[in-house]
Amino acid sequence: MAKVLSGAGLRGQVAGKTALSTVGKSGSGLTYRGYDVKDLANHCEFEEVAYLILKGKLPNASELAQYKTKLKSLRGLPAGVKTVLETIPADAHPMDVLRTGCSILGNIETEQDFTEQQEATDRMLACFPSIICYWYRFTHDGVRIDVETDDDSIGAHFLHMLHGEKPNALHEKVMHVSLILYAEHEFNASTFTARVCASTLSDIHSCITGAIGSLRGPLHGGANEAAMAMIEKFTSPEHAEEEMMGMLARKEKIMGFGHAVYSESDPRNEIIKGWSEKLAADVGDTVLYPVSVRCEEVMWREKKLFCNADFFHASAYNFMGIPTPLFTPIFVMSRLTGWAAHVMEQRADNRIIRPSAEYTGEELRTVPPIGERD
Amino acid sequence: MAKVLSGAGLRGQVAGKTALSTVGKSGSGLTYRGYDVKDLANHCEFEEVAYLILKGKLPNASELAQYKTKLKSLRGLPAGVKTVLETIPADAHPMDVLRTGCSILGNIETEQDFTEQQEATDRMLACFPSIICYWYRFTHDGVRIDVETDDDSIGAHFLHMLHGEKPNALHEKVMHVSLILYAEHEFNASTFTARVCASTLSDIHSCITGAIGSLRGPLHGGANEAAMAMIEKFTSPEHAEEEMMGMLARKEKIMGFGHAVYSESDPRNEIIKGWSEKLAADVGDTVLYPVSVRCEEVMWREKKLFCNADFFHASAYNFMGIPTPLFTPIFVMSRLTGWAAHVMEQRADNRIIRPSAEYTGEELRTVPPIGERD
Ligand SMILES: CC(C)(COP(=O)(O)OP(=O)(O)OC[C@H]1O[C@@H](n2cnc3c(N)ncnc32)[C@H](O)[C@@H]1OP(=O)(O)O)[C@@H](O)C(=O)NCCC(=O)NCCS
Ligand SMILES: CC(C)(COP(=O)(O)OP(=O)(O)OC[C@H]1O[C@@H](n2cnc3c(N)ncnc32)[C@H](O)[C@@H]1OP(=O)(O)O)[C@@H](O)C(=O)NCCC(=O)NCCS
Repeated sequence: MAKVLSGAGLRGQVAGKTALSTVGKSGSGLTYRGYDVKDLANHCEFEEVAYLILKGKLPNASELAQYKTKLKSLRGLPAGVKTVLETIPADAHPMDVLRTGCSILGNIETEQDFTEQQEATDRMLACFPSIICYWYRFTHDGVRIDVETDDDSIGAHFLHMLHGEKPNALHEKVMHVSLILYAEHEFNASTFTARVCASTLSDIHSCITGAIGSLRGPLHGGANEAAMAMIEKFTSPEHAEEEMMGMLARKEKIMGFGHAVYSESDPRNEIIKGWSEKLAADVGDTVLYPVSVRCEEVMWREKKLFCNADFFHASAYNFMGIPTPLFTPIFVMSRLTGWAAHVMEQRADNRIIRPSAEYTGEELRTVPPIGERD
Repeated sequence: MAKVLSGAGLRGQVAGKTALSTVGKSGSGLTYRGYDVKDLANHCEFEEVAYLILKGKLPNASELAQYKTKLKSLRGLPAGVKTVLETIPADAHPMDVLRTGCSILGNIETEQDFTEQQEATDRMLACFPSIICYWYRFTHDGVRIDVETDDDSIGAHFLHMLHGEKPNALHEKVMHVSLILYAEHEFNASTFTARVCASTLSDIHSCITGAIGSLRGPLHGGANEAAMAMIEKFTSPEHAEEEMMGMLARKEKIMGFGHAVYSESDPRNEIIKGWSEKLAADVGDTVLYPVSVRCEEVMWREKKLFCNADFFHASAYNFMGIPTPLFTPIFVMSRLTGWAAHVMEQRADNRIIRPSAEYTGEELRTVPPIGERD
């Protein structure tokens, strides 16, 4: 159920229209174009959901095969993008790398007019995993990887480049689920960034570059990394409980909990939690998953705060051997679909987004000559 | 006077607080921290106004001298930034170059925490002209320019690098005025982009990169370039009138006119118009300035639409020999001060900016098996 709020942060205020999703509407937690996210996560591949979000319908078998073939063909990186990625230091934040990678792509393959928006989106969807892995492997392992793999899906392409071998079926499945869960979420801060940018009629690479920058923040996409940094310090559920109680007493914000719109639960949590449990069994984990479950219990018991989509993503990604700094970039690989669809929607019925502010500053005064200033 | 509006584009809706400026408050068109922009443009250098906006007070003589010395010392570019700039093709849009330049700077000199925000801002203020001119001269003239000049001001530094010689006093003065006029404008679309990004607690380079992408749009900063593209086609005031009447009849949008908040005039127009007239006399222009004046007359007579800040900037920049694609980047060199001050303000009293949307899409439905889809 949606909270009814107003005031700071535009909470509860309608800033535009969308046909893409509902968040917290009663009866169903999260829908993409009318389909419940749980239904989609259970029955679809990510590429089907990307097609749905971007083109408005679920693809039939031949449309899906065609779309996947097309995305596969767009995985390569221009030489200029590789040069830029090789210039970025190894200790840079991968979200900053992706922000720069998207921006330079827009310099080299600029969207010349809005008729190119779908092409530009497919290109980014196909090559963002290449950008992130090319930079990561170059700066961390000193290798120039081949980014044009023949993997069947975006998630498998990513894991293959990252680990240097094709992922197993469980990991590929979890990537589908994860990318589906993160794909779209109405007027969240990064999507709203993309729409404000689109409302000036700027190009799509500008919109997506801006959205990446917003998603980076710890109050938004950055929360999955922050959650990981916290839970990996806990050696047992008891230890986790003790530490969490201390953090709550000190009124610290605990990343991966709470939500601006959902008030009782985040419908994405039970899905990714289930897969995290399966992955824990698969790798024989006896610490991280039970620690995560205890954190969830303590937060609910003490503060009635629930896990959002990010919390169990941390352990799930960790079980698949994904380095923590790459968590939020995966979110980008997925949310790109929602961002791009919102840009298209904004362009189709546009007015520049230009709110007002409440003024709290000085009254009118005259400029004193420089010699007479304090 | 502020329009009272609501609905699309958040027009007239309060999205937060600011002590930085007022736009369209009755009695005075535009104020920065309580000072009328006309007063500032008449009596100050841009660096004084940047100091005012960023630090809250007008500097005294020694503070100003110190600040200018500091900015001078920050003009150099890291080797990595130069490498990236040399990778960007000559036909890229300079706004895309600046977006990428800002993003890569954030990879190399990342803001590690918010205590670094003022330093990071000064650095960008000092080196954005270097970024744009280094790329422009490299790709257009095949030279690697020295960006560490000893020019007294940001405007002179820019013109010096662009033209390869120090500007005359009139041009340096006009740059001060222009940069002052563009420095800050409350919750315009690019500033609002920066604040939405800041509200996730992301880093300042992400915020500024996003703002650059928004300013690029033709409904926003891109308007000065579009205005130039229009007026340079007109061979006489009579020709201009004829063409404008045709555009109005075809209901085309005419760039450089109208405003989301001002309803009767843009206070920045009379100032830049005066300087454009002086520059026209200086270069002996007999076409562009009279053409611009006729455009202004026609729009007011026919549609009661007035010139915004961008319209007479087009001719003024043109008279100073600035290539049209560099017009909006100059806007960035200036507005950066407003953007950064808004980021700091947002951080000091933050709640994540997350509005809601009105849903216009499909009702709840179930996912059909792929074999049963159209
Ligand atoms: C998501 C989030 C930004 C929503 O912000 P919001 O809509 O402004 O939420 P509110 O600030 O109104 O939260 C209500 C109360 O719960 C508290 N709260 C919310 N999330 C909390 C958390 N994760 N840990 C501790 N307390 C929290 C707030 O401090 C506030 O308490 P107060 O009323 O005493 O000030 C916020 O819950 C948060 O910061 N969560 C952690 C970051 C995160 O996981 N982000 C990913 C979101 S998908
Ligand atoms: C600045 C701008 C985006 C403000 O947008 P806004 O607040 O949504 O303004 P509105 O659309 O409410 O304008 C009111 C009416 O004037 C018309 N109008 C506004 N600016 C116009 C222009 N530059 N040329 C022709 N008609 C214009 C609008 O089409 C609208 O007409 P309608 O009611 O018949 O649809 C808009 O004036 C514009 O696009 N100007 C040109 C771009 C520009 O110069 N931008 C720089 C701004 S500093």
